[in-house]
Amino acid sequence: MKIEKDRLSQLKRDAIQGFVKYIGLKAVSLSPGKFTTRLKLEKRHLQQDGFAHAGLIAFMADHTAGYASFSMVPADRRILTLEYKISYFRPAAGDFLECSGQVIKAGRQILFTQADVYAVKGKIKTLVARAMHTMTAVPVDKIPKA
Amino acid sequence: MKIEKDRLSQLKRDAIQGFVKYIGLKAVSLSPGKFTTRLKLEKRHLQQDGFAHAGLIAFMADHTAGYASFSMVPADRRILTLEYKISYFRPAAGDFLECSGQVIKAGRQILFTQADVYAVKGKIKTLVARAMHTMTAVPVDKIPKA
Amino acid sequence: MKIEKDRLSQLKRDAIQGFVKYIGLKAVSLSPGKFTTRLKLEKRHLQQDGFAHAGLIAFMADHTAGYASFSMVPADRRILTLEYKISYFRPAAGDFLECSGQVIKAGRQILFTQADVYAVKGKIKTLVARAMHTMTAVPVDKIPKA
Amino acid sequence: MKIEKDRLSQLKRDAIQGFVKYIGLKAVSLSPGKFTTRLKLEKRHLQQDGFAHAGLIAFMADHTAGYASFSMVPADRRILTLEYKISYFRPAAGDFLECSGQVIKAGRQILFTQADVYAVKGKIKTLVARAMHTMTAVPVDKIPKA
Repeated sequence: MKIEKDRLSQLKRDAIQGFVKYIGLKAVSLSPGKFTTRLKLEKRHLQQDGFAHAGLIAFMADHTAGYASFSMVPADRRILTLEYKISYFRPAAGDFLECSGQVIKAGRQILFTQADVYAVKGKIKTLVARAMHTMTAVPVDKIPKA
Repeated sequence: MKIEKDRLSQLKRDAIQGFVKYIGLKAVSLSPGKFTTRLKLEKRHLQQDGFAHAGLIAFMADHTAGYASFSMVPADRRILTLEYKISYFRPAAGDFLECSGQVIKAGRQILFTQADVYAVKGKIKTLVARAMHTMTAVPVDKIPKA
Repeated sequence: MKIEKDRLSQLKRDAIQGFVKYIGLKAVSLSPGKFTTRLKLEKRHLQQDGFAHAGLIAFMADHTAGYASFSMVPADRRILTLEYKISYFRPAAGDFLECSGQVIKAGRQILFTQADVYAVKGKIKTLVARAMHTMTAVPVDKIPKA
Repeated sequence: MKIEKDRLSQLKRDAIQGFVKYIGLKAVSLSPGKFTTRLKLEKRHLQQDGFAHAGLIAFMADHTAGYASFSMVPADRRILTLEYKISYFRPAAGDFLECSGQVIKAGRQILFTQADVYAVKGKIKTLVARAMHTMTAVPVDKIPKA
């Protein structure tokens, strides 16, 4: 129990580093198979018409679903995204983006996830995108060296 | 002819602004229906295992395919991504990422595109991801205000 | 009100013809934006290992989501599938397949849908696949002639 | 060499059985990582507007890519489709559908494939759809029993 909790806390910290930190993503909560993140929208996140860049939204969905997957595999495994599809239901603007990622089916090697992205403006939360991913869990010693 | 050339030059400049500039993407060449971009890989672009972040690759594919689409529609239209799917064939590391986006089928309102992303290390260029997008061309006055 | 009901009844009948009838799909219920179908699994529906063929499941998801979309557009419009992605969570076997298709976002020209396919064996219903589609509503007089 | 050839011949035969045979798909050629199939379009294959049913096209793409994958794995492995995305570039009508499936990246457990579907009318061959799949190679003794 204790170990599980420690593992989740550690994953939640690990989730925000490198490119992810640079973008400004924040971890909100992580439980087994479910991860929630937030991003305060700033000028640097916008595309040419003033909306959150579609690539930013996809990145958020992918990363959030990725760490939701991490929480379902042993500590000696890494998660790699095999593929995903994302649909953009409407342009995203507001104060924040919020993303809820969850594992739909966790196999030993293959995990299927879904991530919903919301634009939050004041008290209004609107679904702006949904992504479905296929992830793979790879033993850490089989990850190629960069 | 002259106008067409001007439009392409202008689009090529427009392609690099806001979030895109912040990330560090560069335009290499733009011809009708085909756009090539490059990104020098730096530490800030990497994920936890030292590879280019999957979200970064998707962003690059999306943006490159988006401007390939822009080059196929009248100047009073904007391109929005409806959806895409991206497959990651292998982890990406190297000096640069290069992306080649092209329009497969251009309708008046719907455009289908494909974007291939390569990792470039010295003289070796490896296909790391392929994306297929559905884009829509929207009259600029129908774009909602952010 | 009466008209709406007639339109739904007519769509529910229209949904089962041609290739769809040949396959054996049955309409269960149709309400605005939501369609449910069933298919009694027979030997002809199976692939080499005795499971429902993945192509059959995709067809079911596509058709069910398509008619869910039909129920959201005026009678002079036809629905065409622009694209979809489908994930197979587990092999499908059982007495029936059941599919629930629903519209997530209905625009005038673009509709996004989701379809879940379940394998039903006795009283047990298992989610076997989920699909996300992009549909387009086309005026009937703009449909090209086959 | 001989064995390889035998394996390909056997796979080509195996490719057409059950649901696949019922639909009317024919194997044209199979080489390592590449499979071509054909389908004579008949009335039973059409949807409500007289075009080849989108579900039929997806099935053809999936099955063709699946057997292209089979040709890249040892004889004691089965191929299962994890997911795919398919884009429909235009409605399909004609005498035949032809599908060319090929493996883009073959890993030990994960294979990425692409399948292009053409409508053939007399001497004219038109690209009507493209699919990208993620397949998995599973040892035959780990396939669950239907």
